[in-house]
Amino acid sequence: MSPINLAIVGVGKIVRDQHLPAVAANPDYRLIAAASRNGTVDGIDNFRSIEEMLSAVPAIDAVSLCMPPQYRYAAAEKALAAGKHVFLEKPPGATLSEVADLEALAAEKGLTLFASWHSRYAPAVEAAKTLLSGTTIRAMRVIWKEDVRHWHPNQEWIWQAGGLGVFDPGINALSIVTHILPRPVFITAATLEFPENRDAPIAAAITFTDARGLDLAADFDWRQTGKQSWDIVAETDAGEMVLSEGGAKLSVDGRLVHAAPEREYPALYERFAALVKAGRSDVDLAPLRHVADAFMLGRRKFVEAFHD
Amino acid sequence: MSPINLAIVGVGKIVRDQHLPAVAANPDYRLIAAASRNGTVDGIDNFRSIEEMLSAVPAIDAVSLCMPPQYRYAAAEKALAAGKHVFLEKPPGATLSEVADLEALAAEKGLTLFASWHSRYAPAVEAAKTLLSGTTIRAMRVIWKEDVRHWHPNQEWIWQAGGLGVFDPGINALSIVTHILPRPVFITAATLEFPENRDAPIAAAITFTDARGLDLAADFDWRQTGKQSWDIVAETDAGEMVLSEGGAKLSVDGRLVHAAPEREYPALYERFAALVKAGRSDVDLAPLRHVADAFMLGRRKFVEAFHD
Repeated sequence: MSPINLAIVGVGKIVRDQHLPAVAANPDYRLIAAASRNGTVDGIDNFRSIEEMLSAVPAIDAVSLCMPPQYRYAAAEKALAAGKHVFLEKPPGATLSEVADLEALAAEKGLTLFASWHSRYAPAVEAAKTLLSGTTIRAMRVIWKEDVRHWHPNQEWIWQAGGLGVFDPGINALSIVTHILPRPVFITAATLEFPENRDAPIAAAITFTDARGLDLAADFDWRQTGKQSWDIVAETDAGEMVLSEGGAKLSVDGRLVHAAPEREYPALYERFAALVKAGRSDVDLAPLRHVADAFMLGRRKFVEAFHD
Repeated sequence: MSPINLAIVGVGKIVRDQHLPAVAANPDYRLIAAASRNGTVDGIDNFRSIEEMLSAVPAIDAVSLCMPPQYRYAAAEKALAAGKHVFLEKPPGATLSEVADLEALAAEKGLTLFASWHSRYAPAVEAAKTLLSGTTIRAMRVIWKEDVRHWHPNQEWIWQAGGLGVFDPGINALSIVTHILPRPVFITAATLEFPENRDAPIAAAITFTDARGLDLAADFDWRQTGKQSWDIVAETDAGEMVLSEGGAKLSVDGRLVHAAPEREYPALYERFAALVKAGRSDVDLAPLRHVADAFMLGRRKFVEAFHD
């Protein structure tokens, strides 16, 4: 098969740090265009809007949509209508309903839609899933605490309604948890802390269970300075499992059992090429559904104003 | 087929006003038991909990679950595990994820799960759907304004996190809108007004669109005294359509074109019996998904305290 002629829309930090190197290293792709309000990519045609790009470069086979989620639907709808396969950065949209609509549109057109969850491709995630499938889980704790000033400096959109706030990193944890657990879970209670000057939460404490009464809790916080935590800890009959560093390392009872070099975005692009070749889509909305459930079910609590 | 041996769980106002008369008038059902923390039904066996009832009355074929949504999953899971068909009052649960889990469980067990939306069975809803399918809709407005003190006096659960607040009636409007429109819609913006002493909204203003750019807005308010409004108004090429009184009456350019006696709950129980006979489920989560989307995407605004 000849390479997939790819275009990238929304050229920001994640594109420069992750998408461009992953695409450049993968012979299944040829990057031929980019569209962005602010950024450009060297050595290819750049456009100010996806409409302009789609009409100027008919050779495009697929687009990666990396703009903030509030703008993703309109771009995805245009791309699918123009007959292009679509790779959606996480979260796949601002609402569940719009992504369900895109899924139906892709199916109707026979195109690939990929709702990507990069953290599911972290090095030790599959090893954790295998471990949990062979044991009994007594309790699980998800601790996702980072310094928003370091990771999202002056990103205004993330604090706007629909920007998800601390759920922007938290949804990475949820994408792992929903992948490694043997049964679906659902939220039973949540508290969301909103800075009094912001429309998105800075912290969230969530309890979940499943049909068998699993004890699962998640603690998301964007006010963590010093050591950052992206850990999932499970008390199991096989010992204490710790999946740490965002899924990079797995240890059992303090002994490291799995670690490998990080290659989340290379794996995402391998997956997308395989989906395009197979003529299939992959749209798992469970992580975003839990976020929506947390907003619907959660208590709102107001905390001190946040300034970058 | 012999009648379905039915039990009702959560005996409150809606059960007495609607479920009991509808079941009594339908020869497809025999009501044989009820379980409730507070209420009882005359002439049948009453229990304090669903567990007690399920173990004492093995002849039960199906249960109607009418407690507040926060408690619905646990009861539904027990009923399905015991091999009973399940009728869920609206909303079908406190989270989308738990209802998805119930749907999978019912499918696995070969049982019927019915997520009921009573307003979809209002007299003029099908006539409105037929009208809209044959015309172009230029704009639609949903006005759902009622007096919470009259309709939900001292119902504390409705104001708790997960109780949905004004979306408890608003979801009825959403269940009609998602049924009568020709294409799926999704929310683009929302403002939710929370009384400063409550964990659920008293009002919401929501804008939606669809893949073709439909202009759709909904206005939900629980502070309406005097005339109550449960209206859906559409500007169409066939004239101004007004679906009023919660779906009871349809008029076009001021001329009444459809009205019939209200029989929402009789129709719901006919539908449930047909599903049980056919061995099928009916779980459309679109109305609840829009509510979750509104909470996730919406701006929160605080308004004066509400006291019953």
